[in-house]
Amino acid sequence: MKRHSSFHKEKPILIKGIHAIEEAIGSGKSLEKIFIQKGDRNEKISSLIKTANQNEIPLQYVPVEKLNKLGAAHQGVAAVVSPVSFFKTEDIIAQAYERGEDPLLIICDGITDVRNFGAIARTAYAAAAHALIIPQTETASINSEAVKASAGALMNIPVCREKNLNLTVKNLRLNGIQILAAMASGSKFIFDCDLKIPIAIILGSEGKGISNELLKHADEIVKLPMANAFNSYNVSVAAGMILYEVMKQRM
Amino acid sequence: MKRHSSFHKEKPILIKGIHAIEEAIGSGKSLEKIFIQKGDRNEKISSLIKTANQNEIPLQYVPVEKLNKLGAAHQGVAAVVSPVSFFKTEDIIAQAYERGEDPLLIICDGITDVRNFGAIARTAYAAAAHALIIPQTETASINSEAVKASAGALMNIPVCREKNLNLTVKNLRLNGIQILAAMASGSKFIFDCDLKIPIAIILGSEGKGISNELLKHADEIVKLPMANAFNSYNVSVAAGMILYEVMKQRM
Repeated sequence: MKRHSSFHKEKPILIKGIHAIEEAIGSGKSLEKIFIQKGDRNEKISSLIKTANQNEIPLQYVPVEKLNKLGAAHQGVAAVVSPVSFFKTEDIIAQAYERGEDPLLIICDGITDVRNFGAIARTAYAAAAHALIIPQTETASINSEAVKASAGALMNIPVCREKNLNLTVKNLRLNGIQILAAMASGSKFIFDCDLKIPIAIILGSEGKGISNELLKHADEIVKLPMANAFNSYNVSVAAGMILYEVMKQRM
Repeated sequence: MKRHSSFHKEKPILIKGIHAIEEAIGSGKSLEKIFIQKGDRNEKISSLIKTANQNEIPLQYVPVEKLNKLGAAHQGVAAVVSPVSFFKTEDIIAQAYERGEDPLLIICDGITDVRNFGAIARTAYAAAAHALIIPQTETASINSEAVKASAGALMNIPVCREKNLNLTVKNLRLNGIQILAAMASGSKFIFDCDLKIPIAIILGSEGKGISNELLKHADEIVKLPMANAFNSYNVSVAAGMILYEVMKQRM
């Protein structure tokens, strides 16, 4: 796992121009997203879009003024370099099994708040989770603020960016991983679950919760104790409670 | 316990002028702090300072320009009204014992980050903690941002503002309350402690940790499990893990 040292840079690193972005993708550089100019496009841009889709890099269509602001010679495209490297979920699972470890994965479904996302990464890394799995859209930007909120953990824990979380979860189940979805209305307390087996824990956004389709794939809807009737826990605090229980059981 | 409904106001409510502030204190209004003009002061202001000290309201000495910005007719003083009411620690303990409950108190030692403080309040309220105990200085402002981060819990959980946390902790011990300090270097895991007895949990700031003097009064330094060697947990996540264990034991 790569470790980076300087995570305090404030400005995102940009790559401009079709050829430069294609080279970056070809060399395996992690890209957070690619800005594509709205409107007319030539064959080269269409080809770049295809390559980006194959490599599961999010695209954002923007007016030309936005690209001009980012600098000259953009040729209608500019890519934001991600401060973290992205991994493939299947590789992470294979590695964990190879090492004789029970996979522990955290799936963030629509967690857009950068501080919450960073705090989840921090706890997940300390809890020895194998990876964070995030969707391509409706997710917190993995920028310097997120890295700071993670106390640097985002440089250490693998992040897997998946185009379709439903498909990912189905594949996890095929790989023998139990899917737990955390919800206040859960039917089983987390401490009543066996957490010493391969598991993936789905966390939802505070506003919308976990998407209904994703919930259908969960083996268990788990809840946390709450002594006073209150709305809910902060999602990063809930993640902490769950991972505490996992660590305790796995010690 | 008072419950307030509108916590989305953004601007702090100010009370200006000596007489108005004295009346507010006399009527038991919760004041976050009083701004006092630096430099020369008359007898009336000295008398107000005395009253403020007796009522444990933090004072902040500011240049006259700061007061002028807050508005006219300030007479060298302006008070910020707190969105929450403050309680006395001894009253909270007495009430808990009267109801046959084991006091559960959270002491925030130097937690200045508003979002962390709000998240701690949210979890503490959901965990049925009896109160948050905070110092008068080096603590997060209890403003609308803190209330929002607490998801409104700060309107429900009593907050006790103490001039001297060392003295407060000594008094807690005299009242039969076990003092647990949470630190990464702790000697005992939280789950190996009996949490079904009266307890107060000290949380320290992320930068400085718990003050050495306060640590001396702790009955036990407790730690949390951590599977990967990492710097520490976010303080609101650590609070969540501890309170999860407390709830589980008290269920």
